[in-house]
Amino acid sequence: MTFTSKMRAIWSRTDSMLCVGLDPAPAKFPAALADGPDRIARFCIAIADATAPYACAFKPQIAYFAAERAEDQLEAVCAHIRRAHPDIPVILDAKRGDIGATAEQYAREAFERYGADAVTVNPYMGHDSIEPWLERADKGVFLLCRTSNPGGDDLQSLALADGSRLYERVAELAAGRWNRNGQLGLVVGATYPAELARVRELAPALPLLVPGIGAQGGDVEASVAAGRCADGYGMLINSSRAILYAGAGEDFAAAAGEAARLTRDAIRQAHR
Amino acid sequence: MTFTSKMRAIWSRTDSMLCVGLDPAPAKFPAALADGPDRIARFCIAIADATAPYACAFKPQIAYFAAERAEDQLEAVCAHIRRAHPDIPVILDAKRGDIGATAEQYAREAFERYGADAVTVNPYMGHDSIEPWLERADKGVFLLCRTSNPGGDDLQSLALADGSRLYERVAELAAGRWNRNGQLGLVVGATYPAELARVRELAPALPLLVPGIGAQGGDVEASVAAGRCADGYGMLINSSRAILYAGAGEDFAAAAGEAARLTRDAIRQAHR
Repeated sequence: MTFTSKMRAIWSRTDSMLCVGLDPAPAKFPAALADGPDRIARFCIAIADATAPYACAFKPQIAYFAAERAEDQLEAVCAHIRRAHPDIPVILDAKRGDIGATAEQYAREAFERYGADAVTVNPYMGHDSIEPWLERADKGVFLLCRTSNPGGDDLQSLALADGSRLYERVAELAAGRWNRNGQLGLVVGATYPAELARVRELAPALPLLVPGIGAQGGDVEASVAAGRCADGYGMLINSSRAILYAGAGEDFAAAAGEAARLTRDAIRQAHR
Repeated sequence: MTFTSKMRAIWSRTDSMLCVGLDPAPAKFPAALADGPDRIARFCIAIADATAPYACAFKPQIAYFAAERAEDQLEAVCAHIRRAHPDIPVILDAKRGDIGATAEQYAREAFERYGADAVTVNPYMGHDSIEPWLERADKGVFLLCRTSNPGGDDLQSLALADGSRLYERVAELAAGRWNRNGQLGLVVGATYPAELARVRELAPALPLLVPGIGAQGGDVEASVAAGRCADGYGMLINSSRAILYAGAGEDFAAAAGEAARLTRDAIRQAHR
């Protein structure tokens, strides 16, 4: 089963385009979460279980685990999701980008060590930095295209000699020449709906991973209108902080579940 | 002491522009290396000790450790270098690139967990993905500019509307607006000496990390001619595989030392 078909299946079954981002920052953990060497994993697993009914994907951000020397806890979180929620894909947000032999090591890290279904990759180094990620036919790869941060403008929006913008070139390559086996998707921020619409035009069928709603200020309705596929779904709209830290008490997981349900509903509403 | 002043000190003291890349691939380890759960660290430490007299920097590539679940061994290698070779900077080759809060986590990983002196960073996400790396005034940041792989062309060499190339824009930003505290350097492959010369023109004083000699085929003489600073050194010319795997027997570390000495000498020769 390819990553794209896995996404199509869960979009149809759940009618949800919500991706729950797992960015565990211990300084923000609810006081009710018991201390202990595995509390990052316990936090993420509690959130995953509470939000699973409303999610089409989970997206752990590896930086938060690496800064805490908690790679083993990321392994535990990914293993738990595979076991408890086997039809929900895990996208490892790592934004790696390197050549040949090194990219192969990163692919082993993402797909074998963590068992991720897909990964985020930076396109700056070109086609031979992407190919090693495509050797496992069942895995997906989201290339950074137009990111949700203000500095995304600095390079991504530069005008090229042919009049197009750099992010448009990335979208064209991802929808065309680089996408040999249909494994590619794109990362496009919700904070720039006009660019999101342009990317959807250039890449009509690619799954789009869309960060930037919630804490970053992107609008759900505008994003869905701009980014959905002509034939239905096509988006993984990510929310991290607004869900993870929705509650600070004993019921933090239930609060996260409720925030996820409301976000899924807002996305559904916009999608009708 | 800033990273740049640390580099200037070691360039002058050693008259070496050789950076020894630590890309430990267990499948290539010499048979003479005893098995054991810490053999990646033992291999790297043996190489570091044997090549230290000829090196201006060490560059561990984190992907090789991450694929083997060996972050603890990377910590041990970095700690050993700090203790045994305190004047030789460690550049963590991680090519990270993410925004705000996430970039801060990556900076903690590189600078606190591993104690690196500098790091490689991908510029695609723009200024606010770089700023969190610059908060520690003693640390250096090498931005990918014109990488040594063939696919580097795909985006980096695109012509912009003003006639310049994307990698030239990155060099200008790194030498100018983005370099608020003099902490930036650039990664430019040895495989493209004309582009290397152009980057040196745009960034006369920035340290250049230059991969691509040895196994990748870049020419030492052409690289040094193209990339050195007007007033002396300015380059960290990286060699990994040709040094690490110079010998396969009991004397693998001595063979690596000898390969490092010869490479340093070739660079020196080209520099005179």
